Amino acid sequence: MNIGILGTGIVAKTIAGKLSSLGHAVKLGTREVKATLARSEPDMAGGPPLRTWLESQPRVTLGTYAEAAAHGELVICALSGQGALPGLQSAGAEALGGKILIDISNPLDFSKGMPPSLSVANTDSLGEQVQRAFPTTKVVKTLNTVNAFLMVDPQQLAGGDHSMVVCGNDAGAKAEVTRILKAWFGWKDVVDLGDITNARGSEMFLPLWVRLYGALQTPMFNIKIVR
Amino acid sequence: MNIGILGTGIVAKTIAGKLSSLGHAVKLGTREVKATLARSEPDMAGGPPLRTWLESQPRVTLGTYAEAAAHGELVICALSGQGALPGLQSAGAEALGGKILIDISNPLDFSKGMPPSLSVANTDSLGEQVQRAFPTTKVVKTLNTVNAFLMVDPQQLAGGDHSMVVCGNDAGAKAEVTRILKAWFGWKDVVDLGDITNARGSEMFLPLWVRLYGALQTPMFNIKIVR
Repeated sequence: MNIGILGTGIVAKTIAGKLSSLGHAVKLGTREVKATLARSEPDMAGGPPLRTWLESQPRVTLGTYAEAAAHGELVICALSGQGALPGLQSAGAEALGGKILIDISNPLDFSKGMPPSLSVANTDSLGEQVQRAFPTTKVVKTLNTVNAFLMVDPQQLAGGDHSMVVCGNDAGAKAEVTRILKAWFGWKDVVDLGDITNARGSEMFLPLWVRLYGALQTPMFNIKIVR
Repeated sequence: MNIGILGTGIVAKTIAGKLSSLGHAVKLGTREVKATLARSEPDMAGGPPLRTWLESQPRVTLGTYAEAAAHGELVICALSGQGALPGLQSAGAEALGGKILIDISNPLDFSKGMPPSLSVANTDSLGEQVQRAFPTTKVVKTLNTVNAFLMVDPQQLAGGDHSMVVCGNDAGAKAEVTRILKAWFGWKDVVDLGDITNARGSEMFLPLWVRLYGALQTPMFNIKIVR
């Protein structure tokens, strides 16, 4: 499948690498291709800069946000909370229209100190903002509650015996994303919270996540919804 | 031990019943004792009204907020989010001073429709408000992330294989509350998030909790922190 991923950070690269290993043709989207390729510093996880990494990924290419979105039959938003709406606007409603958009971004606000607060919460969410901005796009919020490495390989933790939530307005899109989570990434337990307003729930889990990260001293954890 | 519980709702009664069964002398606190005893309708879980229930509980008595707080060597706030600060103010700083206060209350705001939002979140929390209002009281936030029946009997779900978080500024108080959670109630996994500002994390879990309640159609669930 042709898949567009908006973003070039750890989440984008980790998902692109996984999808590429499964045989999919991935195009990462960035604001300025030249500037992104000019970066020579390691990424935030200590990995190689993007241009070096791309050389090792024959099925992953780089383009603008618009090119990545146009490339994708499925589009994934792996941008920061601040970058998500501008990046999606840059991709354009036409390139995103009618498509499934997996929204992983969290509205983390680092401007008020650590741990971060949320820039939107409680009576709205970034997932809803994205859905309102792109009404014909089928936004499915998921994967935002775990570390990038667990997103695509949950079975490295407790054999995958933990949970993921999804929400969105389109039942068919949620079913397809749930299938992808299970069949491609190996998730075993996926709970459908309901419509996109439930992104308030999964995004407001982040303040607990960042504190658990502090307490446990590792990002390699997740919650299992025991019932 | 003499224990004061502020509140007469399901959470207060469930905890009082458990503590009483363990031999502790519990005093429930209410705003107006006469009015509380005059109520004849069943409680929210369909149980008997408080005056009937009290007759079956030889070690549980009822008093004002101030009397319950004065009675307790340990005090538990089992009030609603709206009622917590007024109830604690009514109990008084003198009766609460120097004591451990287990704060279970959640700042749920039902005024904006269902599921509820939070009346304080993101850059503050009810736990912090309580700690600021009673600076010499050792506030420990915990148990607010599960149903009342799981609070005191976690082993009825998956043999207790799920998690509870605590936070608070006083290390000794947290150690004592953790001991109580484990030895009296049967919790197996208790994670210390850190100081009371971490109540933002556990209170902001509630928007996910209420949505999981809707999706799972049962309140008898909890999260296990898998790591």
